[in-house]
Formats: sequence, structure tokens, C-alpha cells
Amino acid sequence: MGKGITSRDEDYSQWYIDLVKKADLAENSDVRGCMVIKPYGYSIWESIQQGLDKMFKDTGHVNAYFPLFIPKSFIAKEASHIEGFAKECAIVTHYRLKNAEDGSGVIVDPDAKLEEELIVRPTSETVIWNSYKRWIQSYRDLPLLINQWANVVRWEMRTRLFLRTTEFLWQEGHTAHATSKEAEKETLLMLDVYADFVENFMALPVVKGRKSEGEKFPGAVDTYCIEALMQDGKALQAGTSHFLGQNFAKAFDVQFAGKDGKLDYVWGTSWGVSTRLIGGLIMAHSDDDGLIIPPKLAPIHVVIVPIFKSEEELEKITEKVDVISAELRRKGYSVKFDNRDTHKPGFKFAEYELKGVPIRLAIGARDLENGTIEMARRDTKEKKVVPFDEVTVLIPVLLDEIQANIYQKALKFREEKTTKVDSYADFKKMLEEKGGFFLAHWDGTKETEAAIKEETKATIRCIPLNAHDEDGKCIYSGNPSKRRVLFARAY
Amino acid sequence: MGKGITSRDEDYSQWYIDLVKKADLAENSDVRGCMVIKPYGYSIWESIQQGLDKMFKDTGHVNAYFPLFIPKSFIAKEASHIEGFAKECAIVTHYRLKNAEDGSGVIVDPDAKLEEELIVRPTSETVIWNSYKRWIQSYRDLPLLINQWANVVRWEMRTRLFLRTTEFLWQEGHTAHATSKEAEKETLLMLDVYADFVENFMALPVVKGRKSEGEKFPGAVDTYCIEALMQDGKALQAGTSHFLGQNFAKAFDVQFAGKDGKLDYVWGTSWGVSTRLIGGLIMAHSDDDGLIIPPKLAPIHVVIVPIFKSEEELEKITEKVDVISAELRRKGYSVKFDNRDTHKPGFKFAEYELKGVPIRLAIGARDLENGTIEMARRDTKEKKVVPFDEVTVLIPVLLDEIQANIYQKALKFREEKTTKVDSYADFKKMLEEKGGFFLAHWDGTKETEAAIKEETKATIRCIPLNAHDEDGKCIYSGNPSKRRVLFARAY
Repeated sequence: MGKGITSRDEDYSQWYIDLVKKADLAENSDVRGCMVIKPYGYSIWESIQQGLDKMFKDTGHVNAYFPLFIPKSFIAKEASHIEGFAKECAIVTHYRLKNAEDGSGVIVDPDAKLEEELIVRPTSETVIWNSYKRWIQSYRDLPLLINQWANVVRWEMRTRLFLRTTEFLWQEGHTAHATSKEAEKETLLMLDVYADFVENFMALPVVKGRKSEGEKFPGAVDTYCIEALMQDGKALQAGTSHFLGQNFAKAFDVQFAGKDGKLDYVWGTSWGVSTRLIGGLIMAHSDDDGLIIPPKLAPIHVVIVPIFKSEEELEKITEKVDVISAELRRKGYSVKFDNRDTHKPGFKFAEYELKGVPIRLAIGARDLENGTIEMARRDTKEKKVVPFDEVTVLIPVLLDEIQANIYQKALKFREEKTTKVDSYADFKKMLEEKGGFFLAHWDGTKETEAAIKEETKATIRCIPLNAHDEDGKCIYSGNPSKRRVLFARAY
Repeated sequence: MGKGITSRDEDYSQWYIDLVKKADLAENSDVRGCMVIKPYGYSIWESIQQGLDKMFKDTGHVNAYFPLFIPKSFIAKEASHIEGFAKECAIVTHYRLKNAEDGSGVIVDPDAKLEEELIVRPTSETVIWNSYKRWIQSYRDLPLLINQWANVVRWEMRTRLFLRTTEFLWQEGHTAHATSKEAEKETLLMLDVYADFVENFMALPVVKGRKSEGEKFPGAVDTYCIEALMQDGKALQAGTSHFLGQNFAKAFDVQFAGKDGKLDYVWGTSWGVSTRLIGGLIMAHSDDDGLIIPPKLAPIHVVIVPIFKSEEELEKITEKVDVISAELRRKGYSVKFDNRDTHKPGFKFAEYELKGVPIRLAIGARDLENGTIEMARRDTKEKKVVPFDEVTVLIPVLLDEIQANIYQKALKFREEKTTKVDSYADFKKMLEEKGGFFLAHWDGTKETEAAIKEETKATIRCIPLNAHDEDGKCIYSGNPSKRRVLFARAY
């Protein structure tokens, strides 16, 4: 067990917090609810950004940047949007400080009050659609396929590093289309992009689905999501993609002239993922010794630890190691050679296990004689001694194997933790005893959804897109149902 | 002259604004002083980010992220810092909206007033040094070499797209060191990185120098800067690097134990460049027909315009063009094939001139017969017909030539516009008649600096690092001076 890390069995929440802190990913700042993302944590975010940004561009999107501040009147224009975001926003009311006349320090200058308050963006639909009004006149201006990388603020009462913070980093795509069909297609395309990224880069299987009416985004016609399962049996919403219909176009009066010259409101989508993904990455794969980071997102792919008794031995090892480091870097891998003489190999091994470096190489005097090197993988902790000359060929293969293994392990876990239930009693019992995902019939009403949430803290995560028709009875009301939906307790 | 673009001679300011808008770089938003960076403008920022980020990492820096909000008490801790930033900040005072009881709409909930107001960061020294206090205990924790890419807000009264906006994007480096010498070395290293980037990527020659006491950063011991000259003879500060001494370490009580176990305050630096660079890029190189973007930052390197009379001709051209596009993309260039049949070639030519695409290829039926293609460069507008089979070899060479030519042109301009003056009368006369940079003697006092600024609107841009000792007399006071400093009117 990692030094100072609570075990998952003992206290899963504390294990998570310990891991985030000990692995130097992030910490709470002295600013309420806001985190500091430390360099190691931020480098994971940079990998996520690079991977996603390429996928967005490959699907025809471009980046832009819109203002941080949203006038209060903008956010109030879409009725359900203001309803959803009014309770959790940071409000700028003044624009100047001054020295207090009584010498007691610096105060807000009452003369510098804004005529209209500004909201720090919780999401940018309103400020972006206000621009789209200027940009869109004709069908020739459509589609607009724009993404923004930005910080957003939601005034959360209970925060947890990465998973729920007052300020977080994210991307938000905002597209505009000439037809409903095209916008719906975009909504589902981006859901697929997210699922592809989370499964193939983050090695985390997801269920794609549609949110119930009660859980959808304020201002959307339909919200789609990807849901992943964490090791404690709770769900994590990893990304959402919204079909906005003409709601924001109507709120901001964005109309376009079609080929026939007729005016119609524009159809919209929006979609986002955030630094929350890092929380999911940690919670899904890591163990009691530290992080397990899938190679495709790992800031360091290979760490090399020399085992030496003298300066002379270290020199000989360094000479050999330099060759493989250079070769691996040429192949595009990130390699760290930890030649510190202030720490013992065992200490270093534990440190890189904690940090989740996928492959560790160790090489000592005997290896030099034998032409070997020890190769250890973080996910299974297997070690083997391999011929030194083969290691640069073995590493790319092993990294692929680790990536696949982490995914398979998470997939197997999810399958074991996905239960079909047909009675409310079973549902409640299994929720307590086993946790995880539950596929159950639901009568489709808000009332039932709310009652189940109230009584069990489980929510409808989504109506899975791959669910087939199946007649059944709602586990709560006994009323007829056409298909099963996905229930879970969630982050 | 570009359609709808005011000429530089007629009105330089309006020319700049026309260019930013017509080339689709940015626009004013309905949020006071905040701009929308449109996709084409943002893609230039992405190129700038990529170039700089690599240089920062190559010099040992890592990225991290710190909170957007700074408690009022933090910003008040460093005396000159609060003095410098209090007058231009956005202040968050409340965290919730609610429906007005009289049904008049949404209002700020008076019950949701923050105990301590939060400032939207104008720069992050205070919030970062507050973290460094937790991160630094011993000399082993040093140096800390951290950079942040972020948005910042300064409540500017008069704004201009890219050059001065209430919110802007930037990077801010914040480093911590065990010795004064090491921190000073870092300050100058980053100044060199900025100069290298601006000269080699932006093709813009700069003067490196130190700011006078009156112009330095609030909280710094010394501020260094790079100054570039715009086509209207005004200077633009393109980047600054600050030696903070122990000022912020003392304000936030950041001490470290040295090798000898003794406690001392940490030495700091900070340095930043912003989206202002895009303004400089435009103003330095562009002409009355549109942007001239140096190839190293151009979102599109080569645009190919087919000249066709029939669908069949277009097909034949497309077949040939696909080959060279693929070849150029393999080499890492961004290529656009504009095969729209809704616009004539002449319209397209003007459009890509406006957008500053470095090379335009045009190919028609006769070229197909002759095995040729027309190659036009944006900077000089030269055109020539070249053998089709050679074009993918010629383009990389021409792009390098364009990059070098843009730099040389700017350098020649700056040299012509840099004047040594030895009397105040000459200075005032030449400032009006010729503009540009002036090298003149100054007595080193704040009073003289202020008087010259008041009377001429020219400021001391910097004390150039390469200035050699030269005895002389201050142009204003006649008092003795040891070297010349750089004066100019500035953005």
C-alpha cells in the first residue's frame, strides 16, 4: 500500500483524495471551491486536450474564444437556462477597489458599480448565440462548427478535487445548423467522439444514452451522455452532448434565409467535457499503491531507475541508458531517467507506482554484465528481465498491451457490476450490497424518477442508446414500460 | 486596396480596425471591453501558443493552473501591486441570482453576499505565491519553473481589439529560485525566449531593454521588455519579464531552508505575453490589401484556386491538385483548395490576400496543357508561372524566403525610423514629422520622464540592453547622462 494512502476498502473517498494529493495532481486553494491543478495533473489535462482537439478538428470543428462575462440580461433570455444556472453563479458587480477613508485597508469602491451585473460564465450558450446572431444571415453561413477551450464557474456548495469544483476547465462546442436533422446528427456525432476518446484514450468503457426529462441540460431539447462506472460502484457522467433545437436561436433571434429565401430559426447543439475526466480516470483504474494511467494519456511513459553503488557504476549505466532513451524519444515516447543519488531505488519504485508511470525499467551492474534490463509494468506489477537490446522494441508492444489490459479490466468490472433487476425490493437490496449499474424498467414519469431518487439516492443515468425494445413493468409503479433504463448512484 | 479597408495613409487606426474585422480575426462583443476572437484569429493564437509552449518546455518549464479568483486580501498584500491593479479590476461580490419579488425579472440575491470579495485575476502573482508557500520548504524544492495559459481581466476604459481589451488571453510564467543571481538569469533567459519567438516566428525585430522605474511592473524590482515598432511609427511593448526580487516571497512569507539550514526568502520572476501579440503582428506587416502573416504563424500556408469553365475542367484540375495537396500536407503545410463555384477567381484572390495566406497557386486549363501552375506570394505580390512538377519543392523554399523577407522589411523600416537626437527641439520636431524610435540622453529622473511624457506623449520604452556607455546631456534638463535610452509614442 502506498505511503500515506488510505486503502480503497477502508475509505474510497479518502483514498481518492489521498491519491490526488500524494501524486501531486491537484490541491485545494485558499479560494473557496477552486483548485490548483499542479504540473503533473495539468500534464494529463494537456494530453486530454491534445487528443480531443485533434478529434474535433478531424470532424470539421474550429476553435474560437468568447467573453468570460455574460450580462445578466443574456442569461435570463432562455427561461429554463436561467432557472438552471441562477443558483450557482459568480456575479461581478463592481470594477474598482479603493483605499478606505478610515485607513482600514482596501475596499470596493461604491462609485464603481456596474449598471448591469455580469455573470462569470457557467457555460456559454447565451454569449455565443448572441454572437451567432451577427454571424448568421443565410444558409450559406451554416453550419457553424465551433469549439472553445475555457474556464467556467459554478458556485458549488460541496466540492471535490476534479469532480466538482467552483471553477473548472473544459471545452464547450457550440454548433449551428440549417435543419433539425443535421443538428441531431451533430449531437450524436460528438457523443460518439466522446465515447471514442474515453474508451480508447482513457481506457474507460462507457454507456451512451439519452437523459430523462428531469436530468437534461437547462435549455436543451435532448441531452445525451456517456456514463462510466467507478470502482466503488458509482457512476460518473463523463461527457454530455445537447440537441438545443431552436431554443437559443429563438431566445437570441437568430434566423437565416434558406435556399428558398424563407426565414427560419437556426438549429443548435452544444457539448462539453471537463477536468472532471481526470477524476474519472483516477477513480476507474488506480489501486492502493497509486495511480494507474493509461499509456495514451501518461505524462511519462517509461521511467528508468539505475541501481548503482558507485559513481563509476552510474556512469556506465548512464552510457547504456542514454542510447535507449534517445531511441524511445525518437519514437515519440516520454522517458525519464531518475539518476538522483539522494534516494534509494525502492523509494523511487514506490514514487513512480504512485504516479502511475506505465513502465519502469531498472538496470544495475549485473544487468550490464548480462546484457539485460528489468522491465516492470504498473498495471499488473509483473516484472521480467529482458535482453537489453530488445527493450526499445518491447516497450511499444507492452504499452499497447497495458492500454488494452486497463480497458479490459474496467470492462470486465463493469459487466460484473451491471445487474438486471425486475423488482424494487431487489433493486434496493442489490444497490446496497453490490452497487454498480442497474438495468430496470421505468414508467417514464418524472414522479417515479423523483421518488426513486428520494428513496435510494439512485438516479436514471440514461436511457441507453443500444437498449432494445422489451415490454416490462416499472419497478416502482408497476406501470408498463417499453425498455430498460440505466440506474445508479452517481458522482 | 482591399474592399472596405481604409488605407493606412488615410487613417491608420481605422485601417487596423477594418483589417481585424474584414479578415475575420475578432470583433467587439456586447460585453463591455471584451472581444470575441473568431476562428481565423484564434488559429493564429494557437500557432503562437504552440511555438511558445515548446520553447518554454525546452527551457525546463511546466504548465499548471491556478484559480481565476483572487481574494481581496491576497491582492492587498504586496503594497505596490495593489496600488497598480486596484483601479482596473472586476470584483465578484455575490454568488446567486433570484427572481425579483415584484416579478420584474432576475436580480442579484442580497442574501448571497460574499464575506470577502473576489477579484478576477488581473495577473496571478498573489494567488501563485500563496500556493508556493505550501510547496517550498527547502532548497531541494527549488527552482520552481511554472507557466500558466489563462484569461485575465483588467478593467480598461478605452479598448481596442487585441491591443487593449478588458479580458485577454495570455501566458504568465512564475518562477521561484534560491538565489538572486539565478532569478535574474531566469528573467533575462525568458526575455531572450520572447525576443527569439517574436523575431523568428512573428518576423518582427525587437529592442530588448529594461524599463525605467516609472514604467516597471507593480511589485517588481526590475522589469525587462521587448519593444517593436509598428508601421505608424508607434512602439508596441510585445512582452515583459520581471525580476521580483523577494517582494512576493516576503508578502506571502515564502521561506526556504538553504543547504546550511538557514532560512531565507525565495527569489522570484514573472513574465508574460498576450493576445496583444496578434495586434502587433497585424500592425507591423500588413498592407492596404489585407493581412500579411509570416508563414511560421499562418493558419493556411498555401491556397489553391482552380480556374475553370466547366465541371469537367474542374475535375481534371482537382485530380492534379490533389497530388500536390497531399504531398504538401505530408510535409506539414496547411493547404486549402478553394473549389467553390459560387465565387470567381478574382474574388477569391482578393479574399486570400485579405486573409494574408502566404502563397496562392492558381491553375487553369492552359496550365494543364503546359504542365505549369501560377505561384503568387502575398508579401511582394510577385507572380510567376512554374513547372507543375516542381511546385512542391519550390513552396518550402519560397515560404522560408517570405518569412525572411517580412523580417528584413520590418528591420529595414525600424532602422530607417530609429533616430539619434541630441536636443529637445529636434526630438519634438522629429517625433511629429518622422515618428519611430528615438535614442536620446536622459538624466535618469522620474521628473524628466514625466515632463517629457506630459509634453510630447512619448515615453521611455526602455533602456536598451545593448546600449553602450556614452557620456551626454539629457535632452530635457541638460544634466549629465551615461547612455541613451529609447523614446517613442506607444500603444
